Amino acid sequence: MALTQDFKKSLYQSLYKITDGNATIAPEELCCYAYDATNQMFMPDVVVFPNSTDQVSEILALASNEGIFVIPRGSGSGMTGGSLAVNGGIVMAMGRMNQILEIDCDNLVARVEPGVITGEFHKAVESKGLFYPPDPASSSFCTLGGNLAECAGGPKAVKYGVTRDYVLGLQAVLASGTVIRTGVRTAKGVAGYDLTRLIVGSEGTLAVVTEATLKLLPLPESVKTMAVLFYTIDEAAEAVSAIIKESVVPRCVEFLDRSSIECVKDKFNTTLFNVDLLERIHAMLIIEVDGSNQVTQEDAQKIRDFCMSRGAAQVIIAADSNQAKELWAARKALSPAMFKIAPNKINEDIVVPISSIPEMVKRIEQIKKRTALSIVSFGHAGDGNIHCNIMYNRQNEDEQRRAQSAMDELFSHTLELGGTITGEHGVGITKIKYLPKEIRQNEMDIMKGIKKVFDPKNILNPGKIFI
Amino acid sequence: MALTQDFKKSLYQSLYKITDGNATIAPEELCCYAYDATNQMFMPDVVVFPNSTDQVSEILALASNEGIFVIPRGSGSGMTGGSLAVNGGIVMAMGRMNQILEIDCDNLVARVEPGVITGEFHKAVESKGLFYPPDPASSSFCTLGGNLAECAGGPKAVKYGVTRDYVLGLQAVLASGTVIRTGVRTAKGVAGYDLTRLIVGSEGTLAVVTEATLKLLPLPESVKTMAVLFYTIDEAAEAVSAIIKESVVPRCVEFLDRSSIECVKDKFNTTLFNVDLLERIHAMLIIEVDGSNQVTQEDAQKIRDFCMSRGAAQVIIAADSNQAKELWAARKALSPAMFKIAPNKINEDIVVPISSIPEMVKRIEQIKKRTALSIVSFGHAGDGNIHCNIMYNRQNEDEQRRAQSAMDELFSHTLELGGTITGEHGVGITKIKYLPKEIRQNEMDIMKGIKKVFDPKNILNPGKIFI
Repeated sequence: MALTQDFKKSLYQSLYKITDGNATIAPEELCCYAYDATNQMFMPDVVVFPNSTDQVSEILALASNEGIFVIPRGSGSGMTGGSLAVNGGIVMAMGRMNQILEIDCDNLVARVEPGVITGEFHKAVESKGLFYPPDPASSSFCTLGGNLAECAGGPKAVKYGVTRDYVLGLQAVLASGTVIRTGVRTAKGVAGYDLTRLIVGSEGTLAVVTEATLKLLPLPESVKTMAVLFYTIDEAAEAVSAIIKESVVPRCVEFLDRSSIECVKDKFNTTLFNVDLLERIHAMLIIEVDGSNQVTQEDAQKIRDFCMSRGAAQVIIAADSNQAKELWAARKALSPAMFKIAPNKINEDIVVPISSIPEMVKRIEQIKKRTALSIVSFGHAGDGNIHCNIMYNRQNEDEQRRAQSAMDELFSHTLELGGTITGEHGVGITKIKYLPKEIRQNEMDIMKGIKKVFDPKNILNPGKIFI
Repeated sequence: MALTQDFKKSLYQSLYKITDGNATIAPEELCCYAYDATNQMFMPDVVVFPNSTDQVSEILALASNEGIFVIPRGSGSGMTGGSLAVNGGIVMAMGRMNQILEIDCDNLVARVEPGVITGEFHKAVESKGLFYPPDPASSSFCTLGGNLAECAGGPKAVKYGVTRDYVLGLQAVLASGTVIRTGVRTAKGVAGYDLTRLIVGSEGTLAVVTEATLKLLPLPESVKTMAVLFYTIDEAAEAVSAIIKESVVPRCVEFLDRSSIECVKDKFNTTLFNVDLLERIHAMLIIEVDGSNQVTQEDAQKIRDFCMSRGAAQVIIAADSNQAKELWAARKALSPAMFKIAPNKINEDIVVPISSIPEMVKRIEQIKKRTALSIVSFGHAGDGNIHCNIMYNRQNEDEQRRAQSAMDELFSHTLELGGTITGEHGVGITKIKYLPKEIRQNEMDIMKGIKKVFDPKNILNPGKIFI
């Protein structure tokens, strides 16, 4: 949709008016809203910054009348291009709607605007002794609105579930500008169809969320962190499902493969880790348990005994929060450290059943050999969610081709093992061609039908999810 | 839709053929599939008993071609008429599809057919050390398919959530006969729109579920049951939200008001309960905590101390499972005992924010006075889900009118306090006229649009949810 300069200018003026001056067409500003974590860039025609549901509604009504695309955007930290203006149009940046409207300690419920930074929301509820478990790696800068759009997860999903499990109700604006309210502000509620969870994870294609009612939990009294080193990946994977079956559900079970350990070799605190062992192990788990002081002590010891009896090479239980940070240090350093291997990466968040992790890791090894590329796997082993990073150099056409072929094969194996191509990043544009491998035509037709009900003119974040 | 005798006969013959003889038009058999727990009766034209997804698909394709209504049915234990053939048509009884197809202990996942009895599924997974928390009061005879249709809850929802939180994926058949597969069999998955949770709770109006993939948990090592007696309802309600905030999340917090206690006065084990106190208290909580042996011991003591410091009259912690049964006895006897008061009841499953329970109870007292009817309230206080039973005599027209007016007022107050008209029973036919008080036209339009996408000819369970 190429807009004429005149039209663009008049559109900008209308948006400027609706938002009391909070719109821009200056190229140097537009480009700040053109990228996301996929490292791709698409220039929007205009960027607008609404600060109320009414403004969002007016903007959408205008866009709907004119047939202009609208792309809602949080912090642009998405991994699959969900917030990119791939066909131009209006980027609606939600950052000004960043108020925590209410934290209700009696009913364990919060009301928030979409532009609230996830990490700031964590701090706000924790200061009141409450807990919001969804915790994507980008929590220090991503927004709750983006988390809702993608149904973000993170490491604590193994015990606490994902974003969808914490959304009780929404206020959202349809493509036409119509404001809807879904769900409830109570723990239970089954009146009518579940529009709330339909909108969550719909990647901004069904409606623009302007307010969410979120469920909170009491903050656990204590957290214990431990690192477990295994000689083989099989032992590590078996330990993961065995631990959970043994009635201890850790809040995280993070996993690093040999390549990951290599990447961050210099980040391990050698007063805690045995240097010699670090050279010989093929998998590391970082496990956290939470609950009362006593419970976490006992659970950590149970997990240690259990892992040792299953062939673990070493188990380190953090004595305090500083040591816990040391145990996490290597894991946290991974993302930047990978660029030592190659300048570009494709980060895919596949999920397989926990018991298929060893098989998946073997198949990834084969892909590595076949494509002669480095592939670094780590992630949330507790729920089978492996972040698989294919490292390559985009300038090298041959490497780029091999990376593409590695990705194709990765998804085929994932689906063959009963998994899914995306656990928490969404489909966006980067997985769009793979979606039909997972979702058949029958289901796709229903999804497209639903899209039409919400957005008959297809103006809301077009070009995402569906081909 | 009145079918001619000839048409009915030929329809019956087609269904007989599809299901190898598992269909009936005999009135004495039809009437067994005409009722549910609402005590209303609507005769179907035919009842068919498919035993495979293929048969369900063939039946629906036939019905769709002929424009015949199809009403899916589990055990007929629904409280709002969801399985009633209000406009005649084919009742599709799912009881023959009652296989537990798989219990995967490594990945904590089960695959089931819809006709599995919930209580039998509980036993099957528990025998493997696993746990499926949703637990409606009818679990000894209701089916998992019915639970999915209504998004059933039960007492353990306060800690463990409701049916929707345990459904990972579905196989379902659309009105046209088209088979769809939704969701995943892993803990995470965000590929495409969330059709799974859209179908859950849609009361059989969107698709007929023929297989569900359910998430399981490890079975807690131990459960501790306690009864807490309060002089006032306010103290009881305040204790509930305070307990949860104090980092102890019990797995149930059941609540009985003064009328409930009166009803089952003779069911209390007087070696455990103080008879004198039972006359003076206005609320009783039955609380269960689960976890390791040590945790449940500690949590029970914490809750006892906490309740005593907040004015509880007595706290009884069951020493063993027999005593636990004694504590539950009065609660379990409630439903039948209520009929001592009046021959008919309207059982509404309203939900209010926990902190509004005292106010709601006060308003229920006012409704009682105004209508001069007995109203017995009990339920799942931990999630604000109050089962409010309006007792009356259906033969007495005046009482019937007053019961109706009590119900109208009950729902108004519920919504005014930020609640919902149904926590777990669904809308069906009995709440259909109240739904527009909770769901506005904008959202209703979207829901009706979705219904049309799934079932353009409106043959699947028509006359439910929407006016």
